[in-house]
Amino acid sequence: MPKQVDYEDRRGRIAEAVCHLIARSGMESVSLRDVAAEAGVSMGAVQRCFRTKDEMLQFALEGISDRIGERARSRIEASGTPESALTLLDQTLSALALLEPEDRTEAQVWGAFVARAAVSDDLATVLRDTYAKLHDLLVWLLDYGGSTGELRPGLDTQAEARTLLALTEGLTSQVLVGHQTGEGARGLLRGYVKGLRR
Amino acid sequence: MPKQVDYEDRRGRIAEAVCHLIARSGMESVSLRDVAAEAGVSMGAVQRCFRTKDEMLQFALEGISDRIGERARSRIEASGTPESALTLLDQTLSALALLEPEDRTEAQVWGAFVARAAVSDDLATVLRDTYAKLHDLLVWLLDYGGSTGELRPGLDTQAEARTLLALTEGLTSQVLVGHQTGEGARGLLRGYVKGLRR
Repeated sequence: MPKQVDYEDRRGRIAEAVCHLIARSGMESVSLRDVAAEAGVSMGAVQRCFRTKDEMLQFALEGISDRIGERARSRIEASGTPESALTLLDQTLSALALLEPEDRTEAQVWGAFVARAAVSDDLATVLRDTYAKLHDLLVWLLDYGGSTGELRPGLDTQAEARTLLALTEGLTSQVLVGHQTGEGARGLLRGYVKGLRR
Repeated sequence: MPKQVDYEDRRGRIAEAVCHLIARSGMESVSLRDVAAEAGVSMGAVQRCFRTKDEMLQFALEGISDRIGERARSRIEASGTPESALTLLDQTLSALALLEPEDRTEAQVWGAFVARAAVSDDLATVLRDTYAKLHDLLVWLLDYGGSTGELRPGLDTQAEARTLLALTEGLTSQVLVGHQTGEGARGLLRGYVKGLRR
């Protein structure tokens, strides 16, 4: 079904164009005309792929959410020392906070989506789903750390996961506007995780 | 100088109109025409008050930053039990995280500004200044808690202030999109502050 493949490929290219536009000049710059030009397709093609702007944004956000989740999981699976829950936790949090210079575009796009989700129920639904999955991932890591004896016994892993997810979210914003450096934010996360040790 | 007063008053009304528009339909909706209509002034009047859209946004953000800072400080000054640093810290963090239902508009506007600051150096400068002031306020509160003996001795108050500010920032976003309730976020902050006790 080559037609189907083309369609999915085109949707992906359009989502990528949306992210580039947001990172370059903000969510306000995402017009049908500019998206079409950036993706190298006609305006009609964009309209055939997405009925509304919010549907297009939602698809782009799902792509970013998947990538962030995938990256965190693959880092965990690729870890050579699966016994160290603390190392995994530290690496996962750094990945989620989008602290590397090459993560800047994704951090910008994420922030733009969070802002827009405040006035778009559809986007808010995607974000809540993403937060829920990331929360579960952090709870799993914290429970794992409890089972290996690396973390303090009796930790409220649900509350810790909520704190850690909010902390990474805040750091993403603060690094983006230059209140903290990526290095400083990473040190802060590491310090927090150290405080959970047995 | 009644003319000067009128001018400042008009700038204030325009900034308020900008915030209403952002809260209603996002930063994308802030056009010269809509701002003028919302503020009840002519488009020419808006242009005489602000040369560019970013100058207008910057002024609106400064207003919000001032209000958030003022509210935190006045809560501290109005406190009947100035000896309880922990209570002050708890109240201040709740205020900064904009957790009350009536804070929703401000939280939306704040999020929109953070997102736009990623592509606007002028706005990023205002945000960094705000973060720096809030950081100093939190360091002061933490040092005060140390001096009253309520907090654990030897706390790294600079690092704790950075963690707390990022945590409140993240909670603001997560409450806004409905991942956490205001009540849940308040509980989380309270739990964190409890962990700092001697």
